[in-house]
Amino acid sequence: MGSSALVFSPYDREVLEPYLPPRTPANHGSLPFSTLTFATSLDSAISLSPGVQTILSGPESKAMTHYLRSRHEAILVGVGTVMADDPSLNCRLEGITLEQQPRPVVIDPVVRWDVAKSKCLSLAQQGKGKAPYIVCIQSNPPFGQRKALEAAGGKYIYMGFEDAMTDDGFRFGWNSILTALRDEGLHSLMIEGGGSIINSLLVPPEVELISSVILTIAPTWLGQGGVTISPERKEKQKQLRLQHPKWHPLGEDIILCGTLRADRGNWLQQHSK
Amino acid sequence: MGSSALVFSPYDREVLEPYLPPRTPANHGSLPFSTLTFATSLDSAISLSPGVQTILSGPESKAMTHYLRSRHEAILVGVGTVMADDPSLNCRLEGITLEQQPRPVVIDPVVRWDVAKSKCLSLAQQGKGKAPYIVCIQSNPPFGQRKALEAAGGKYIYMGFEDAMTDDGFRFGWNSILTALRDEGLHSLMIEGGGSIINSLLVPPEVELISSVILTIAPTWLGQGGVTISPERKEKQKQLRLQHPKWHPLGEDIILCGTLRADRGNWLQQHSK
Repeated sequence: MGSSALVFSPYDREVLEPYLPPRTPANHGSLPFSTLTFATSLDSAISLSPGVQTILSGPESKAMTHYLRSRHEAILVGVGTVMADDPSLNCRLEGITLEQQPRPVVIDPVVRWDVAKSKCLSLAQQGKGKAPYIVCIQSNPPFGQRKALEAAGGKYIYMGFEDAMTDDGFRFGWNSILTALRDEGLHSLMIEGGGSIINSLLVPPEVELISSVILTIAPTWLGQGGVTISPERKEKQKQLRLQHPKWHPLGEDIILCGTLRADRGNWLQQHSK
Repeated sequence: MGSSALVFSPYDREVLEPYLPPRTPANHGSLPFSTLTFATSLDSAISLSPGVQTILSGPESKAMTHYLRSRHEAILVGVGTVMADDPSLNCRLEGITLEQQPRPVVIDPVVRWDVAKSKCLSLAQQGKGKAPYIVCIQSNPPFGQRKALEAAGGKYIYMGFEDAMTDDGFRFGWNSILTALRDEGLHSLMIEGGGSIINSLLVPPEVELISSVILTIAPTWLGQGGVTISPERKEKQKQLRLQHPKWHPLGEDIILCGTLRADRGNWLQQHSK
């Protein structure tokens, strides 16, 4: 990851616009506008194996990711991603002010991540990004971590166990999590990964919480054993089809935009006029 | 499957041309020009489960498949596909003569498929396609089947066990199979499926036998448990990347063309001039 600022063309921005949150925060009720975004190989893998950062897409897709970050008030990742990659979780697009930086949100139920030692918090301390909000079900995270986090403007958001997970096995209680983030004043959210986060949102009824999907596919096969995006099949013989699909080549990759909710179709048409 | 003739636009044909066999059969040595082609979901599945025919791509992609069939002297599928789908294996593009029909080739090592009862042979008997060549390692297929096949102009092609499979587990001996098909006068071959056939060709050294790849991706997830295209990973941490990728939206689907062999790059550039 270089530190130089990235550029994303006006033409490419225009193509994505119908799938992005409105520029003036509209009333989306009690939930943020949530965009699911990730990059896969042709065999639907986001990495070669768990915890292994894998470069899939080209520089143009990287610039797109940072443009998307600039268009959302928050970006969300799971604890697996921050533990494996120690990502910056800021926006490195040209000309972005601190005010315009997205708020990193990390889902870390039992506080495994030491935020005090993270690149993300270090960047916040340098004014190059915002400090993260960490969603957890543990009410007493290590004192030093909490102190460092709060000093930089971040916080832990405590969920009841029953809110953070559903009782249908070990699953994310997305409705409660997204409601909590909206209560924090976040109108729009870009959900970036990793695999368990994404897969848990591609099944009914959670899929209804997603406003838009923007995914990148690289012309490569990672092969068997990768971390793959493929939803659990709840209804036999049923496909989960993206509505209003728009394919947009970008460098050697392809971008696919679409929606998953039936009612998003009308919104998209109005928005595109 | 309707019986009406399909139309594929001149513009779409032009986009695919650099990835197709030359119109005047060139000297490709002892092997046919082999194009690997298939349609997957976003999670790289070709069907919901083994033996279940799954409609993934739209009508435009279907027209493309038939155009591709018209541009190859033979089309190849595995026994699993013919047993599950009883496919027509002919070209239903507008204005195709019997002479221009591709030769169906079925890989059926132990002759499980009863060709005498197939739609494919029936169409050949009606002059709507050619009778199949069946590649097997059994030298005495049922007499009735052989009689019906040969009467329609088809044949069994017998391979030695060591030629049909390699000793590295149960694998297709692709070099021998493709050589045998070239010896039958077939200069170009479109390899359509199913999953085991495709996956067995996406690993080294077999991948070197593939001249072009043309794949279709539909904007849908089939979910876990589907028949997926994902090569066995032979070298740790190594990606199989498509060279000279060309993305081409077609209806709601995307077409991806590319090559896998290093030496195909020069050929492609010359061919595109």
